Amino acid sequence: MHLCTFEQDGQARVGLVRGSDLIDLSAAVGDALSTHQPMIDLITRWADLKDRVAALADAPADAAVDAVHLLAPVPRPGKALAIGLNYLEHVQENIIGESRTVPAHQVWFPKLPSAVNGPFDPIVLPRVSQMTDYEGELVAIIGQRCRHVPRERAHEVVFGYCVGNDVSVRDYQKRTTQWTLGKSFDTHAPFGPWITTADEVGDPHQLALSCWVNGERRQHSHTSLMIHDIWAQIAQLTEVMTLEPGDVIFTGTCSGVGAAFDPPKFLKDGDTVRVEIERLGAIVARCVAEAPAD
Amino acid sequence: MHLCTFEQDGQARVGLVRGSDLIDLSAAVGDALSTHQPMIDLITRWADLKDRVAALADAPADAAVDAVHLLAPVPRPGKALAIGLNYLEHVQENIIGESRTVPAHQVWFPKLPSAVNGPFDPIVLPRVSQMTDYEGELVAIIGQRCRHVPRERAHEVVFGYCVGNDVSVRDYQKRTTQWTLGKSFDTHAPFGPWITTADEVGDPHQLALSCWVNGERRQHSHTSLMIHDIWAQIAQLTEVMTLEPGDVIFTGTCSGVGAAFDPPKFLKDGDTVRVEIERLGAIVARCVAEAPAD
Repeated sequence: MHLCTFEQDGQARVGLVRGSDLIDLSAAVGDALSTHQPMIDLITRWADLKDRVAALADAPADAAVDAVHLLAPVPRPGKALAIGLNYLEHVQENIIGESRTVPAHQVWFPKLPSAVNGPFDPIVLPRVSQMTDYEGELVAIIGQRCRHVPRERAHEVVFGYCVGNDVSVRDYQKRTTQWTLGKSFDTHAPFGPWITTADEVGDPHQLALSCWVNGERRQHSHTSLMIHDIWAQIAQLTEVMTLEPGDVIFTGTCSGVGAAFDPPKFLKDGDTVRVEIERLGAIVARCVAEAPAD
Repeated sequence: MHLCTFEQDGQARVGLVRGSDLIDLSAAVGDALSTHQPMIDLITRWADLKDRVAALADAPADAAVDAVHLLAPVPRPGKALAIGLNYLEHVQENIIGESRTVPAHQVWFPKLPSAVNGPFDPIVLPRVSQMTDYEGELVAIIGQRCRHVPRERAHEVVFGYCVGNDVSVRDYQKRTTQWTLGKSFDTHAPFGPWITTADEVGDPHQLALSCWVNGERRQHSHTSLMIHDIWAQIAQLTEVMTLEPGDVIFTGTCSGVGAAFDPPKFLKDGDTVRVEIERLGAIVARCVAEAPAD
């Protein structure tokens, strides 16, 4: 199934996407869903609600998907984390003159929830930098509260998958040892367009991934090339912390980021960035320069 | 005023602390407060609710503070961030053989919301490490949604202050370039015991700060010694991202962390850690070893 979050009258609602049609789940199973965070609520109680949602497969559409404003499927996750340096060709490409080797352990950093952005909403290029970059990534959405998940059971805790862009402001990322600020400018964690449930994706490590800027293909890889697969990522994270329904994991980018070109190809006002992953759809953002300071 | 969050029948409620008495604000202004995140709701609508709360200053107590289970004042913040290397004597002390210099820019990392812990709840020492450490810190709680706040206006966006412990698992912190995992083990972001509102604190850079382990004073400093004061921190963060009511800022630790002793003094099962800050009170945690794997 494809499950989305959309905005209506300023409220987030969840929907079932069926081709070009949308069925409003907040109306159909409305008595059951929190208005506060309906997608997290839906994920949390999926075992109970799944059959009710599945029964709507033939229901009349409430709207065309194109006619609604899609939000990120989880507009305000409890936490979003991203792994760095997880595709060999990306590790080996030069970013701002720095060549790197594969780290001994998984490298994790946050995408702060205030950075989450809708799948077709603009990416704001901050006025304090000229070095905003794209990173197309597969995103996993956690389905249940869990800790100490062994990798052979990690697939059980994933609810589904999305397409994401780990937008990165390279000078802010690199000017201290910690990447946190450079990775979490407002609007810099778009994902979507919806959650494709895990049962429909099959093996998430068998998906082609591409990223285009203004129609030029800059990234093209395959999720089979992850250094640490999603199961290893979940095992590592839950060694440390509890993951919860709706938590978001950005699983790493492949080579072809703007910073690695000579000269670099950073995002410019008016650029269009499209990230597409096999079976999951595509997210598309227009880049807009932040307004100058008053 | 002193505003706390406490647990009753499995629900988070907010309270006014008056000496040893607690007045249940969720009952007194209950029609106005969200049950989902009552403290964030109270902070968000403080301008409207402040007088109603102040009017309760002479109301009869609902309980003794000692008799309730205090949660972190914001049990599940939208985000929590911490600055590293922000007291010169801490920068210069050796941590795991590494001597450091003052970085050119503020160094930020996350305390993930799943790590938030109550002010008197146990700190769990993870079974995967023998290097869990304390870091006593002043914590600021954001009062309003804001972006691009100049430092001379930054005091306007702070709702109040707490005592915090930026618990750190040194081997996980240091084994990759990113500190994220080592800083966000479950239970490793305790703060409290309550929020002291900013008007009552006065200048937050004039507070003595101490941390004891089993009665031995390990850290003793003063918030005037921050390299980047809280106003500069807010200016830096809001250059990048929107801060929101209830967001949490750990403002850095001083010298005397366990890793800097020779031999190191890491936390052990049964240890008691107390962090105290002038005017804000104290938080106290017993350290308990995580149960071994099945």
